[in-house]
Amino acid sequence: MTVGAFLLALIAIFAAAKLFGEIAERLHQPAVLGELVGGAIVGVSGLRLVDPHDATISLLAQLGIILLLFLIGLDTELEKLLRVGIAAVAVAVIGVALTFAGGFALGHFLGLDTIVAVFLGGALSATSVGITARVLSDLGHLHDRESQVILAAAVVDDIIGIILLTLIGRVAEGRDLTPGSIVWLTIVAFGFVIVAIAVGSLLARAIFRALDRIDITRGLLFASLIFAFALAYAADRAGSAIIVGSFAAGLVLGRTEKAREVERQVHDIAHFFVPIFFVAVGAAIDVRAFTGRFLLIGAGLAAIAIAGKFLAGLATPVRGIRRSVVGVGMIPRGEVSLIFAQIGLTSGLLSEGLYNAVAVMVVITGLATPLLLRALLPKGVPTQQHGRSDLVMDAPMDAERRRRVHEAESPT
Amino acid sequence: MTVGAFLLALIAIFAAAKLFGEIAERLHQPAVLGELVGGAIVGVSGLRLVDPHDATISLLAQLGIILLLFLIGLDTELEKLLRVGIAAVAVAVIGVALTFAGGFALGHFLGLDTIVAVFLGGALSATSVGITARVLSDLGHLHDRESQVILAAAVVDDIIGIILLTLIGRVAEGRDLTPGSIVWLTIVAFGFVIVAIAVGSLLARAIFRALDRIDITRGLLFASLIFAFALAYAADRAGSAIIVGSFAAGLVLGRTEKAREVERQVHDIAHFFVPIFFVAVGAAIDVRAFTGRFLLIGAGLAAIAIAGKFLAGLATPVRGIRRSVVGVGMIPRGEVSLIFAQIGLTSGLLSEGLYNAVAVMVVITGLATPLLLRALLPKGVPTQQHGRSDLVMDAPMDAERRRRVHEAESPT
Repeated sequence: MTVGAFLLALIAIFAAAKLFGEIAERLHQPAVLGELVGGAIVGVSGLRLVDPHDATISLLAQLGIILLLFLIGLDTELEKLLRVGIAAVAVAVIGVALTFAGGFALGHFLGLDTIVAVFLGGALSATSVGITARVLSDLGHLHDRESQVILAAAVVDDIIGIILLTLIGRVAEGRDLTPGSIVWLTIVAFGFVIVAIAVGSLLARAIFRALDRIDITRGLLFASLIFAFALAYAADRAGSAIIVGSFAAGLVLGRTEKAREVERQVHDIAHFFVPIFFVAVGAAIDVRAFTGRFLLIGAGLAAIAIAGKFLAGLATPVRGIRRSVVGVGMIPRGEVSLIFAQIGLTSGLLSEGLYNAVAVMVVITGLATPLLLRALLPKGVPTQQHGRSDLVMDAPMDAERRRRVHEAESPT
Repeated sequence: MTVGAFLLALIAIFAAAKLFGEIAERLHQPAVLGELVGGAIVGVSGLRLVDPHDATISLLAQLGIILLLFLIGLDTELEKLLRVGIAAVAVAVIGVALTFAGGFALGHFLGLDTIVAVFLGGALSATSVGITARVLSDLGHLHDRESQVILAAAVVDDIIGIILLTLIGRVAEGRDLTPGSIVWLTIVAFGFVIVAIAVGSLLARAIFRALDRIDITRGLLFASLIFAFALAYAADRAGSAIIVGSFAAGLVLGRTEKAREVERQVHDIAHFFVPIFFVAVGAAIDVRAFTGRFLLIGAGLAAIAIAGKFLAGLATPVRGIRRSVVGVGMIPRGEVSLIFAQIGLTSGLLSEGLYNAVAVMVVITGLATPLLLRALLPKGVPTQQHGRSDLVMDAPMDAERRRRVHEAESPT
């Protein structure tokens, strides 16, 4: 990509994000829905200004989701998350089981090979927490109990997704699966989070103490970014998921006394990168995939994807929460599904048509979630628990409040 | 590049920039010198964590220089710049003439073909203003009269460099040069700046008026970024230089009432991208080029490059300024020189050895400038003219002042 094309892509991304984000808010929808639609308009099916498969755009988008999960981690209390731990594991396991079985059954019903049906099941299994997290933040509900269950379940989900991906990938390569290798993969993937939080907490304290002494310009910001990137990198290398690493980094730094300062400074940077992720997700929507048989299969996959996670939510073993919110929050699929489909495509197991069907499923679940969550949740006031304001994204009520203050102040 | 390698590169860039920037400041040198040295350590000759030729790193680095020139434009007054206009044009024209002639003569002396000697002359001609601007900002001298001359001369220089590049590129492609095409190129390259400032001023006012009415979250920041990227893109398309476009965008927005707010918000983003540029410049230093005959030729080119610009500075037709500061400020070479060398290499006119000699020249001028400027200029207090503080980069005296305030406040 030339620097000219890159500048044009950035202009298109920010213009689409801000314009359609604003339109979505005027229609009382979460801003992220507007960013997705805006992305579709500047993307492969529309103006073709943003190529989500370009290496640089894709890396910047991944930086966006890493920073978003880092901020959400900063804003999440580990204790609260652990309190919903059992519920979250239940939601994740039930959700993965139902959707995997459903996808497999659909593949079987269509007369596909067993391994192909396994790929379809795998592609349905893992929730992509980015969209839900943005919607909850946009609507000012990030500190609700339901949100804690969703976040924790999505982390468990992502880890299960990675394990499944590795296992199915090995099968696709023709390698054998042993019970030993399955157990080892599971231990590594979950163990990473525990080790990262334990080691990270010690490290964070040492880094902050050093920073207090040497006073580097913007040292806190860059130390925090390096910390988040390092944990994301370590998670990747350890066979866990990148965003699990940055979320863990946020959880760790969120427990330090500098949490608010880190949040404020990282927030400024995240404002640049986060819209790139959501516009790129929208830009990848390819309407040419929306045809005939595979559109139908995609719709079928989406129905299973939505029903499976919704039922898992309804089965949440926790009292006093809106279980439907948990179920809807688990609906969006994203990167993990597409990675499944991609591996299936390149290994020759999935046809181009089935790949497109998975893409259709991702689009349907991605667009349905903001609409459904908006219908279930009132627009709240940003939660101000523990002295921290909802900073993950400027919530629309901030804008509304500003407008109200503005009106109150101006005499006209 | 995988996302893992990308994260590792970012970690290396920020760690190198902050660590070596701090060390440079402790040694009373500008932070940018530390970033260049840090870049060399993590770059192709050292740890190999940062590949400056990777497409994504290179695009992010270019975004860094675009944002830096945008901020410098925001902080520069067009009136002051125009007041030094004649002096700046004189410095630029004399500097380009002397270094072009010197490079050509050296090529001739070495018995190279005329067209090869022309390439060497061209590679020496254009100042890369990024390093000088950072040093002036680091040392708190961005508002000095000398700095205005340097900035204006560097803009003129860049435009002449682009014209030369286009002309020599055409010759290298075997196309004819007509006096008409030379005049046309010159009109387009200079005309762009005038048109950009005129049209941009009208546009900026309309955009700000619209933003006042619709209140988009961080609308001012993104409108400003889009404005800067759009002008950089337009400059590129019009046959001018990208950084001339973003500098012009800064000049335009700097004349509006929102200048300080724009500066503050863009500054937060620039902190992320600007170090990527300087670390990438350092990372490109290839010590394997530092051998034998071509090291000597590189040193010869550097001597001509330094002497030519220094003499041009001494010839500045303005009274009451430190002409040696102007001369030294014009010394650094960068992208334009390397683009010349790159085109020469790919067209088969320059040998690998001569390409390396140009790279050696870029390294020597790049490292010499901060050292020489530091020797000529005292560490000043950030200029606070017209109520604007020096925000282009956190100047080291900010850190020092903070330290002093900190010491004064703490009882121990």
